[in-house]
Amino acid sequence: MTYCMGLLLQEGLVMVADSRTNAGVDQVANFRKMHVWESPGERMVVLLTAGNLAISQGVVGVLNDGLGMADGPKQTPMTAATMGDVARLVGGAVRAVEHVDGPSLRAHHVDFDFTAIVGGQIQGGPLRLFLVYSAGNFIESSPETPFFQIGENKYGKPILDRVIRYGTNLADAAKCALISMDSTLRSNVSVGPPVDLLVYRRDALRVATRQSLAENDPYFAEVRAAWSSGLRSVFSSIKNPPWDIGAQ
Amino acid sequence: MTYCMGLLLQEGLVMVADSRTNAGVDQVANFRKMHVWESPGERMVVLLTAGNLAISQGVVGVLNDGLGMADGPKQTPMTAATMGDVARLVGGAVRAVEHVDGPSLRAHHVDFDFTAIVGGQIQGGPLRLFLVYSAGNFIESSPETPFFQIGENKYGKPILDRVIRYGTNLADAAKCALISMDSTLRSNVSVGPPVDLLVYRRDALRVATRQSLAENDPYFAEVRAAWSSGLRSVFSSIKNPPWDIGAQ
Repeated sequence: MTYCMGLLLQEGLVMVADSRTNAGVDQVANFRKMHVWESPGERMVVLLTAGNLAISQGVVGVLNDGLGMADGPKQTPMTAATMGDVARLVGGAVRAVEHVDGPSLRAHHVDFDFTAIVGGQIQGGPLRLFLVYSAGNFIESSPETPFFQIGENKYGKPILDRVIRYGTNLADAAKCALISMDSTLRSNVSVGPPVDLLVYRRDALRVATRQSLAENDPYFAEVRAAWSSGLRSVFSSIKNPPWDIGAQ
Repeated sequence: MTYCMGLLLQEGLVMVADSRTNAGVDQVANFRKMHVWESPGERMVVLLTAGNLAISQGVVGVLNDGLGMADGPKQTPMTAATMGDVARLVGGAVRAVEHVDGPSLRAHHVDFDFTAIVGGQIQGGPLRLFLVYSAGNFIESSPETPFFQIGENKYGKPILDRVIRYGTNLADAAKCALISMDSTLRSNVSVGPPVDLLVYRRDALRVATRQSLAENDPYFAEVRAAWSSGLRSVFSSIKNPPWDIGAQ
């Protein structure tokens, strides 16, 4: 499986993805689920994918080759005029892969399993974040719902629900996303490092930082250890139930 | 949906269930998912159910009416000789309901959605905990895997994974189960209070305490508030990422 999240905040964007894929427990491998199209000073687009790896790679392939939209010339995330066009392009790429591979997958009783998060900014336009479904349709984030998750999203949702608001700063958001990833890594073996993390500051039109965090990355390890020991001390500080539960 | 958990520890048993059910967002109601059969000094059996409410109520009905096992006389959780027999009885009750209702449910494209956790102790026998599947088969907990969850289990799994060990004492286990329930309540509107909690001390053969915790229960509210503010302060105490993420 996979766990990816995209957070669109007042200050900018935080995108995080694990990199484990598995086709059965004896075929576990690492593949990058984060794809970046950047022309510094002009555009920064980042895509996170979850689901069937062949579909995901097919979608990225179609995006790089370019796709004709509404009878116009072929477009890629490097040439699309707006982030709305980028979202439509990703949706179109999903439909193109479904058109080619869908019937064979159905014949083999394989679900067409794919979701993506795509976000970024193109010169002259706003920073936007979209969640694209396997049908190629999509929704956009809003200040009230500033993050999207795909894949194994439930383990890591409580901490995002507690901490992430539209006004959360980028440093806190990156820290929180790593804690959310940590909770998922601990509870689900199908999600694994390295963890890809990208931070984008609104209107910069270039990536602020992009990190690939191995299990032994010093900062990631410190966050995980501090969170774990902090949780334990909060847990210990909460008083015991007041009910009589019999003799010790 | 539902969220229930059963923890079998060295000191005894902790069982916790929410009580929200819904059939569509306009049919939300409270039903108890915890069922107790107790003969103080002789036996204490507790069942938690998740899934289709009609199936769950059907299973409990069959258990109370009694079920003939292997050509013997009808048995109920109050008459079964061992906890193994109780688990087989629950499995048999699920199969009895499936036999009657399964074909009609399938005709209406409704999954036969049911899981249960059943635990307890009968005089002369050990304390045991089982997870019963919709097919009526079941697995048993062990010191290495001392808890089971059913229903919306993922939100609340990370804290159980971090805290619960076979040697965890009953007070800590009850506290941890309430925190696990809190994480689920916050992230999923289909899980709701009151929260039913039962603690059983090994070999007592009677319930130690049974609580129904409304949202405004003083202890539950205190745990929720202390956990929330504690998490925030641990979060704040963790240092920011070391990477340059551009000007503030």
